[in-house]
Amino acid sequence: MKNSTKSVAKPTLEMWFEFGSNYSYLSVMRIEELARKSGVSVVWKPFLLGPIFKYLGWDSSPFVLQSNKGKYMWRDMARQAEKYGLKFNQPSEFPRLATLPMRVAILGAEQPWIGAFCKNVMVQNWVDDLDINTTDMVLQALTGVVPNPGLIIDHAQSDVNKLRLREQTEEARNRGIFGGPTFFAGEEMFWGNDRLEDAIECARTVPVG
Amino acid sequence: MKNSTKSVAKPTLEMWFEFGSNYSYLSVMRIEELARKSGVSVVWKPFLLGPIFKYLGWDSSPFVLQSNKGKYMWRDMARQAEKYGLKFNQPSEFPRLATLPMRVAILGAEQPWIGAFCKNVMVQNWVDDLDINTTDMVLQALTGVVPNPGLIIDHAQSDVNKLRLREQTEEARNRGIFGGPTFFAGEEMFWGNDRLEDAIECARTVPVG
Repeated sequence: MKNSTKSVAKPTLEMWFEFGSNYSYLSVMRIEELARKSGVSVVWKPFLLGPIFKYLGWDSSPFVLQSNKGKYMWRDMARQAEKYGLKFNQPSEFPRLATLPMRVAILGAEQPWIGAFCKNVMVQNWVDDLDINTTDMVLQALTGVVPNPGLIIDHAQSDVNKLRLREQTEEARNRGIFGGPTFFAGEEMFWGNDRLEDAIECARTVPVG
Repeated sequence: MKNSTKSVAKPTLEMWFEFGSNYSYLSVMRIEELARKSGVSVVWKPFLLGPIFKYLGWDSSPFVLQSNKGKYMWRDMARQAEKYGLKFNQPSEFPRLATLPMRVAILGAEQPWIGAFCKNVMVQNWVDDLDINTTDMVLQALTGVVPNPGLIIDHAQSDVNKLRLREQTEEARNRGIFGGPTFFAGEEMFWGNDRLEDAIECARTVPVG
């Protein structure tokens, strides 16, 4: 029986996301299973939407600034969550600041626990209506996910890690990202949870470098 | 053999659309076959997007005002059209004014030729890159579709018909429409070509009044 020992690089898909972004919630909850089924590796790319919106000239989310669009979005979210079998409750605050959990996410982006942590934070925000930008909530989201949650938070709050999140947000802007979630399969950009399946299919066909 | 002579009302789905709206193109080309398969009747609701955008404080399409979003949209359109097996070429002018063909559309909204006419205009704009807001082009779009294209255009240009289009645009605004295409299944609103299938599914389950 032949058995190659060479490791074959898996195709990858970048997911640029924000804990405060409602459609990012749907993708964060769905991407791991979809990617696994297609043999695609997820590259987690946390970035802050606030500076992107400011760059576009907005002082908040378009869903806040455009009331009709916002009203529609909440109905759409409820229907979409139901379609995917996900729980959803409209948070009492929107968009929620997420600087602390986002710093943890960029610290752990290449760690095996990133998916579990991100899903925990998303459930706090979009199901349990909790203030995700607190040490208590981030500790809870890390509990059972990493051996030492307190140490992770300390590292996440280091100057060098704070800078990484700012730089990654700047990179998002430079790559033309204008909302979340955004996916990249190679240079092909896909915007929105509605394009997750297309993005994974595209990633499968992009040659691995 | 029993045979009921009572006519059973079919469920209906409203499609609010604009010839100048790129994602309306995808839905106009797709809706008739999808609705027929689901036993749903399409209610054609032409309206002008320009006044809606003005009401929102914009002097053009968001795809023009936000350059990154616009650049992305053209790539997305090419991919989406390919996915649906539709031809597509980025028009040399965007968004194209469509007042004249929109007036014809509202005149014929309840006529059996509405679908064929709308698809012809959409192909002129999104495949053949033609100026759809001219008598020549509208005549071509009506040729083979109605017995007397010239008469239809005359009626479309009547004051009472012009007023109907303005009133329907005002109704779009009052119903909270902020972009096209928008679908209504009863009071349930769905925005964008990405929601066409969900909207049809919803229409199937709305009780017919």
